[in-house]
Amino acid sequence: MTERFTVTYHVRSDPASIEARAWAIAVEQSVEMPLAAIDEPEVLFNIVGKVEQIDDLGAGTFSVCIGLALATIGDDPGQLLNMLFGNTSLHDDVILRDAVIPDQLCSTTKGTPLLRQRLGVARRAFTGSALKPQGLAPERLAELAERMALGGLDFIKDDHGLANQTYSPFDVRVPQIAETVARAVRSTGHPTRYIPSLTGDLDQLRARAKIAVDCGLDCMMVAPMIAGFSSVRVLTQSLPEVTFFAHPAMGGAARIAPELLIGKLFPALGCGAVIFPTYGGRFGYSPATCHELAANARPALAVPAGGITLNRVTELLDFYGSDTMLLIGGNLLLAGDRITEESAAFARAVALHGKT
Amino acid sequence: MTERFTVTYHVRSDPASIEARAWAIAVEQSVEMPLAAIDEPEVLFNIVGKVEQIDDLGAGTFSVCIGLALATIGDDPGQLLNMLFGNTSLHDDVILRDAVIPDQLCSTTKGTPLLRQRLGVARRAFTGSALKPQGLAPERLAELAERMALGGLDFIKDDHGLANQTYSPFDVRVPQIAETVARAVRSTGHPTRYIPSLTGDLDQLRARAKIAVDCGLDCMMVAPMIAGFSSVRVLTQSLPEVTFFAHPAMGGAARIAPELLIGKLFPALGCGAVIFPTYGGRFGYSPATCHELAANARPALAVPAGGITLNRVTELLDFYGSDTMLLIGGNLLLAGDRITEESAAFARAVALHGKT
Repeated sequence: MTERFTVTYHVRSDPASIEARAWAIAVEQSVEMPLAAIDEPEVLFNIVGKVEQIDDLGAGTFSVCIGLALATIGDDPGQLLNMLFGNTSLHDDVILRDAVIPDQLCSTTKGTPLLRQRLGVARRAFTGSALKPQGLAPERLAELAERMALGGLDFIKDDHGLANQTYSPFDVRVPQIAETVARAVRSTGHPTRYIPSLTGDLDQLRARAKIAVDCGLDCMMVAPMIAGFSSVRVLTQSLPEVTFFAHPAMGGAARIAPELLIGKLFPALGCGAVIFPTYGGRFGYSPATCHELAANARPALAVPAGGITLNRVTELLDFYGSDTMLLIGGNLLLAGDRITEESAAFARAVALHGKT
Repeated sequence: MTERFTVTYHVRSDPASIEARAWAIAVEQSVEMPLAAIDEPEVLFNIVGKVEQIDDLGAGTFSVCIGLALATIGDDPGQLLNMLFGNTSLHDDVILRDAVIPDQLCSTTKGTPLLRQRLGVARRAFTGSALKPQGLAPERLAELAERMALGGLDFIKDDHGLANQTYSPFDVRVPQIAETVARAVRSTGHPTRYIPSLTGDLDQLRARAKIAVDCGLDCMMVAPMIAGFSSVRVLTQSLPEVTFFAHPAMGGAARIAPELLIGKLFPALGCGAVIFPTYGGRFGYSPATCHELAANARPALAVPAGGITLNRVTELLDFYGSDTMLLIGGNLLLAGDRITEESAAFARAVALHGKT
């Protein structure tokens, strides 16, 4: 018997065609050829995808569960993505809705518990902000980071747009910011973490991670849909002591359900924290999606972001619970000269919620 | 003055909101923060994205052209993707429709002319097929490849599902197939090329490319949306003598226009040939999309695929012209024992068209 894992697609179809459409997906995502041309029984029985269940969700949409053979994946997370949705991503009547991630492709991330231990944060939620805008020189970003850290935030991350631009090269920016944040930490006594954003090919990702490690940093950010699943897993496995924050850039969430992509696949790559656009911000995720995504991701730290304002702290923590980092970026920066005070107010609001 | 390049989005919106929505995208894809919180004039003038044009396409859709600062990209193709569509891919009212690829990110690929020279094919279109199904052992795939090559095909590629599975490890499969194809070439005198599929992280991509080079192969396949743009460019630049065929897996074409993703971005990574699902096959691209995609991609070789049958050779070559490889996979395999004869008929049909 072949071992299979179940993948769920949502398919737009009329009732008369759904069974044929479901089998077509099962074939496309396994052998990708007419079954009549396969003369090896082993392949027909053990490799061709199998339609396990079809449910009518109403309104012309069906949920289709397909069992794919584990043997087609091996241990490469890029190949997992390929078999989950490679060719079928090109069909616009199908959404990849869910999957049981095979054990051999699941990195175990310590996520939230490790971050609680390292920051000495027992129960409350975490606070975070982002260094912006694009175009600032390293000194300006370092100064901004210091002022936020003086307000007592838990995490300060690079904007995901910060890469290795000439106006702010990685190897200049990261040591400077690490230094000013370390200075603020000595002043506040609170172990604020700076999270640099790693970009580029695998060689560059590794070289930049090494610079960050040399600066004493133990949290880093990466965008798996841009860096590539295979390379991200090499990176997370080579630095097990680092917590990787997954950024959803290029997530194209209308076609791959974010509950799966961000909630399951990114943690499976070894990311210990997942950043995602929260409901009620400037992206379109529903509360139900956000709830399921966060639940799927744990023990990785859930990091809702994307237009959060200070006056939503209570509402969001009631919704997400405290195994959460609230990431307030642009709306904190609006405080201008009062950035330290606003950061402190943010830190206080979260701490206060943790005590109720 | 800052140098900018133009990116075109298609946005669903009502007429009253489109200007605000356009500016919101320009901000999201550049500084990603409230402009009111930016106190550096340099950043406001030279880094923030600029709405250059808005056209009403009718039916509630607008074309929005945004000028992004070249300086935000640097020379990393992953960062290009990030700035083109990183966060905006998460909004489901927007499609990334087109972009002027900045010069520093355009690899120059010799594409079709180089392939014509190497295969001694002066004017006609190329023929190609794929080794399938998943699950066959290397010996069976090698035998199949030999029989296709004996029919005189120009290219025989790995199915994109073939990775490094235990039933067909790359380092066993590729040398065996290279050997049987070389044997067929000695028999036919026609320089058929075998195209292995490279998968995995950058280290694995390089190691597998080296195995292929050691087998004397000068054509290879890679899926940029899975391998990661940055890593693919490192690979293509490190092997300038190899023609890389870009596979569209994970292209999710409903959100990024295939004319851009496959037609422009994949060649810009240094891929000398682009495989794409043709109109009239089992994928949903229109003739207009296929025509523009192929025109954009050239001089990279246009490789329509996805359900092509032998009786469509004339129609497709009339449509695409001869700087094309027709890739017939599953439908050729249906010939079973007559695979060599069917391959030969395919080769003849294309050669015949070249003479008209």
